[in-house]
Amino acid sequence: MKQIHGGDIYDKQIQLDFSVNINPLGIPEKVQDALENAVRKCMQYPQPDARMLQEQTGRMLGVPFKNLIFGNGASELFMALVHALKPKKTLIPVPSFYGYEHAALAGEGKLVFYETKKEEQFILTVDFLKALDADIDLLFLANPNNPTGSLLDREFLMKILDICREKEIVVVVDECFIDFCDVGYSLLHETESYKNLIVVRAFTKIFSIPGVRLGYLVCCNENILLEIQRHLPEWNTSVVAQAAGIACIKETDFIKETRVYVKKERQFLETELRKAGFTVYSGQADFILMYDDKSLDKGNPLYDYLLQRGILIRDCQNFRGLSEGYYRIAVKKHDENVSLLRVIQEYKNS
Amino acid sequence: MKQIHGGDIYDKQIQLDFSVNINPLGIPEKVQDALENAVRKCMQYPQPDARMLQEQTGRMLGVPFKNLIFGNGASELFMALVHALKPKKTLIPVPSFYGYEHAALAGEGKLVFYETKKEEQFILTVDFLKALDADIDLLFLANPNNPTGSLLDREFLMKILDICREKEIVVVVDECFIDFCDVGYSLLHETESYKNLIVVRAFTKIFSIPGVRLGYLVCCNENILLEIQRHLPEWNTSVVAQAAGIACIKETDFIKETRVYVKKERQFLETELRKAGFTVYSGQADFILMYDDKSLDKGNPLYDYLLQRGILIRDCQNFRGLSEGYYRIAVKKHDENVSLLRVIQEYKNS
Repeated sequence: MKQIHGGDIYDKQIQLDFSVNINPLGIPEKVQDALENAVRKCMQYPQPDARMLQEQTGRMLGVPFKNLIFGNGASELFMALVHALKPKKTLIPVPSFYGYEHAALAGEGKLVFYETKKEEQFILTVDFLKALDADIDLLFLANPNNPTGSLLDREFLMKILDICREKEIVVVVDECFIDFCDVGYSLLHETESYKNLIVVRAFTKIFSIPGVRLGYLVCCNENILLEIQRHLPEWNTSVVAQAAGIACIKETDFIKETRVYVKKERQFLETELRKAGFTVYSGQADFILMYDDKSLDKGNPLYDYLLQRGILIRDCQNFRGLSEGYYRIAVKKHDENVSLLRVIQEYKNS
Repeated sequence: MKQIHGGDIYDKQIQLDFSVNINPLGIPEKVQDALENAVRKCMQYPQPDARMLQEQTGRMLGVPFKNLIFGNGASELFMALVHALKPKKTLIPVPSFYGYEHAALAGEGKLVFYETKKEEQFILTVDFLKALDADIDLLFLANPNNPTGSLLDREFLMKILDICREKEIVVVVDECFIDFCDVGYSLLHETESYKNLIVVRAFTKIFSIPGVRLGYLVCCNENILLEIQRHLPEWNTSVVAQAAGIACIKETDFIKETRVYVKKERQFLETELRKAGFTVYSGQADFILMYDDKSLDKGNPLYDYLLQRGILIRDCQNFRGLSEGYYRIAVKKHDENVSLLRVIQEYKNS
């Protein structure tokens, strides 16, 4: 059984894809140039360990390069760390990205879910701390979370880290969307203090290159790093991915510009969707979780209405912890957002 | 501890790389075009399961597409199948490609090696059949083998398959170099009869795109296929790799042309190397294993002599079952082969 994700546009006629959460500003020009140069170097093997990328990313982040491992997308790293850590029990708060579950299912251990509440906007609260049992070996957290876009604050994150360190729970924090947030606390530099912490990031979303596959993790626990390496194939990042990554890490202004743009457009979309009568869950990322009570009646009317008009949104009913009527829409370019809102208004009036 | 492979040119000044076994004819023009078009589509997610590539490759091979799994290089598939099959005991004949060992080491089981003999040109003989103990779960075979280039004949392969089926040993046959051979029996269509058989192939070598990462396996055992899928990350093949693959499978004439070219140049190199006084192991692939008895005296003189002149060959002393003095050289373009032979002759006269 395959999970259905956003972005599977291959069997549909789509003019506007609001189902994937990539940067509305597209691919930075220099990254596109790097891609085009790289495909002329594909008769070479990729550099083992992606060393050049590893060193440059380390410098950019202020992290020793030896503490970075690159992967064929964050997905490969989630799976490799499950293979490496062999958790007997893994905890995943939901709703969240299906990838953690897919990775955990590759392990032999038990998988438990912590369901956040609709009444609490699906946000983790102190009640979650009680779920951190000593028999858990591995916790997947997303900050910000997908599909809710909600951020965890520093104090709460540190509380989780402290409890998990005490109970010997390895914490994997997925920060693939953190570059979109103008607020938010990254745990990157906590890896030095917390040997039970693995931070995972991707180039995919913020630089709009999901087709390339490139992610990395940061961890300061030498044993964990060695075990993860042991469970990764050789040459796991392509020549194209390494070249793209080296171009991406220089794009700090692009990230700043993105944050400003996304914040403005997210607020615009949230306001307009609320005006149109939808429940909107406030987040900080480049996507919005919303709820349409009209869907309760029959099937999937909003999704279908939009799809018939060439617009794809992410139907969230297959997210564990959600149900029919929940949708995730990406924050796109202003004119695209306006187009979406116009069709949504038509739907509301229909 | 990282293994040293061929092709790691990133910290050296190399004019001629004879250390990697890619096609001397380079990348087919239409494959290069496909790569260049694909990097303009990287803002899309790759198609899940690489469905289009899967269907077209299935048609080309005459294999049901559901029996194909694509990977981020053959390396990813070797590791995924070890994760999936969890062999208690794995057998690897050596000398052979280190990748099987790297994959097997990701498992929890025991790893045993069968050493072929120098006196038998490192070719598997009937003696090997005795090594197929009932307590073995997994066997890695390469046909042709790397670094020896030796092919196994049909009768011997079928004997191995029969014994392994009886003893419930899963046989992984790496055919990554079989397209270079003008003779040689592929087990592709034996997968229907042998549910214990997995054939692995790559686009890397024959189409000169090691930087892209793309391989596939063929297997008709539904349980094995499901287990392998469970141990592969989602979106494991990039947009670039899928597009390259779709272009590659149409290049049947290119493969024929390659075989003729490689055969001629391999024979030329073999003859000249023997004339120069080296021991040459006759193979059928696009590389040649040779032995230099001068190396017995001190260090690595042939390798060093060539490297100082900008030529990289594959020092094979880190291949299990080989030792100092063994080198693998790729079959390259005629003028490149002539250049190599000239410098080798200088070395001989030095």
